[in-house]
Amino acid sequence: MEVAILAHEQFPDRAKTAVGVLRYGDQDVVAVLDRETAGTTVGDHLPDLEAADVPIVEGVADAPAFDALLIGIAPIGGGFEESWRPDVRGAIERGADVVSGLHYFLNDDAEFAELADEHGVALRDVRDPPADLTVASGTARELDCEIVLTVGTDCSTGKMTTTLELLGAAREAGLDAGFVPTGQTGIMIDGGGIAIDRTISDFAAGATERMLEERADEREYLFVEGQGSIVHPAYSAVTCGIVHGAQPDHLVLCHEAGRDRIHGYESFPIPEPSAIAELCLDLADHVAPTALLGGALNTSGLAPGEAEDAIEAYGSRLGAPAVDPIRNGTDRLIEQL
Amino acid sequence: MEVAILAHEQFPDRAKTAVGVLRYGDQDVVAVLDRETAGTTVGDHLPDLEAADVPIVEGVADAPAFDALLIGIAPIGGGFEESWRPDVRGAIERGADVVSGLHYFLNDDAEFAELADEHGVALRDVRDPPADLTVASGTARELDCEIVLTVGTDCSTGKMTTTLELLGAAREAGLDAGFVPTGQTGIMIDGGGIAIDRTISDFAAGATERMLEERADEREYLFVEGQGSIVHPAYSAVTCGIVHGAQPDHLVLCHEAGRDRIHGYESFPIPEPSAIAELCLDLADHVAPTALLGGALNTSGLAPGEAEDAIEAYGSRLGAPAVDPIRNGTDRLIEQL
Repeated sequence: MEVAILAHEQFPDRAKTAVGVLRYGDQDVVAVLDRETAGTTVGDHLPDLEAADVPIVEGVADAPAFDALLIGIAPIGGGFEESWRPDVRGAIERGADVVSGLHYFLNDDAEFAELADEHGVALRDVRDPPADLTVASGTARELDCEIVLTVGTDCSTGKMTTTLELLGAAREAGLDAGFVPTGQTGIMIDGGGIAIDRTISDFAAGATERMLEERADEREYLFVEGQGSIVHPAYSAVTCGIVHGAQPDHLVLCHEAGRDRIHGYESFPIPEPSAIAELCLDLADHVAPTALLGGALNTSGLAPGEAEDAIEAYGSRLGAPAVDPIRNGTDRLIEQL
Repeated sequence: MEVAILAHEQFPDRAKTAVGVLRYGDQDVVAVLDRETAGTTVGDHLPDLEAADVPIVEGVADAPAFDALLIGIAPIGGGFEESWRPDVRGAIERGADVVSGLHYFLNDDAEFAELADEHGVALRDVRDPPADLTVASGTARELDCEIVLTVGTDCSTGKMTTTLELLGAAREAGLDAGFVPTGQTGIMIDGGGIAIDRTISDFAAGATERMLEERADEREYLFVEGQGSIVHPAYSAVTCGIVHGAQPDHLVLCHEAGRDRIHGYESFPIPEPSAIAELCLDLADHVAPTALLGGALNTSGLAPGEAEDAIEAYGSRLGAPAVDPIRNGTDRLIEQL
């Protein structure tokens, strides 16, 4: 499938979904829409990507033909920016579907809904959960499959990246491994999944469990993307529902080197990672026994020498193997399985 | 306000909402509807209630005049039982509002909606959360008010009862205390509140925080009704959102004497209560420092002598004062504040 990705004024640093799809998606990306960096290519900003040649263009009119427009950014709160309207309209008029992970649903927008209908295209709000979710039955551990879940010291510490790197490394090692996406970017990459942060809280564990049940049969291992952090003042409910719904055999704790405050909640210090790991293990253990597979440290802000020191220090603090999934890959963690 | 309470075939033991409203509500209950125990009075089943004289009747046609019909029971899953339809219809036709805490919304039922419109009465689905909820700001601790939250070793261990007994004892002790209801029964008793189990999981902490903000200004103490249990395989997300949204100064751990398995999830043993208390404190402490005020033990299944022993043993296990709120009252806990 050929896609264009909207990332106005935020590519690449604040365009987590766009970069995630470029790095891990099966889609053939034909253009990134960013009026600020138009005229450059993806490789000018992210030289290590296979998709380095993809052009960055001003708007949908300048993009080559595509099957779907992906909304690749999200303002805080998940609202729709009115300045994106001409591009969404343009995509629909060109006969393309539009895929969005915003809290604001495109299907609830009268103009888009009518236009999509007229042009026979689909608006896919990937954050909209299925209507038939229910409570967990507590049976994930009975699945014939080992479950690995990423947890974090905060939001945006690399849980999705780590999960997908683990998946790739497991497959390269010959393991029969599957991915369980729980957030909008993971869902766009995978093509399926449920955004747990948008489910009714009573059904958060149940929605997680349901995804595992749907995917476990064919797999020896499932790698579940975690959300938020168990010590986050706003989002911990989502984390907790995933931990107990997934009943993981193994946890990987993701942290960003140098970050010591909860992002956007700066009055809250991030506790010592080993204390967070202990809390996650204790929380999980009371429902199903769990072990810490290792740590994943995002060292993208550090120079190579510093990075290696930081990764080693992180591992000693956790008492477990640690890697930067992007710098080192995740083989050291996969070997523990 | 005069109310009738529907509790067909489940009064009193499986009619938690009906009994809660009878025990703690300000409403003047004129009748309980239960076709199985019709002809008896509330006092025949629950002699300690002030509302002992309330008649139990076959259906709405046999009840004295009332302003509202309350649905006082909930089947597992929160669905609507079709056998209740004639009573709900009858109430509307008599010009009464209908108040329901079911997951099934009366307002979504075409027949009821039309009939209510015709008769100018309101259908109040108390489990339907406000449409404008948002994420927590993490500021509950900054409120000029001490927060006491009940947590439990399982569902239905007496969290609402304990919270309301604490509220009553605090007020009798001359403290300026308020109630924060987080579930359907608490909301029916209070007349306000948000059912946290029905909010979007991203907003569970935010919805809790919002209730505290609305109520804190006028109060020295707020008593927050907890939900579920942090070790529950299905509902822990709800618990976690309330713990971090409320940022309580004090926790009270509620347990039912003799219960050793999660209700409805019998393959899960209930962990040692002191371990659950530690987990709750650890979880809460990482966001805002918290202390264990004491324990509340439901000993309704025990003889008086056994009950006193069980309460003392529970207190020693927790290393904190313990009471059965119904047998002993909660003064011993309120004295700690």
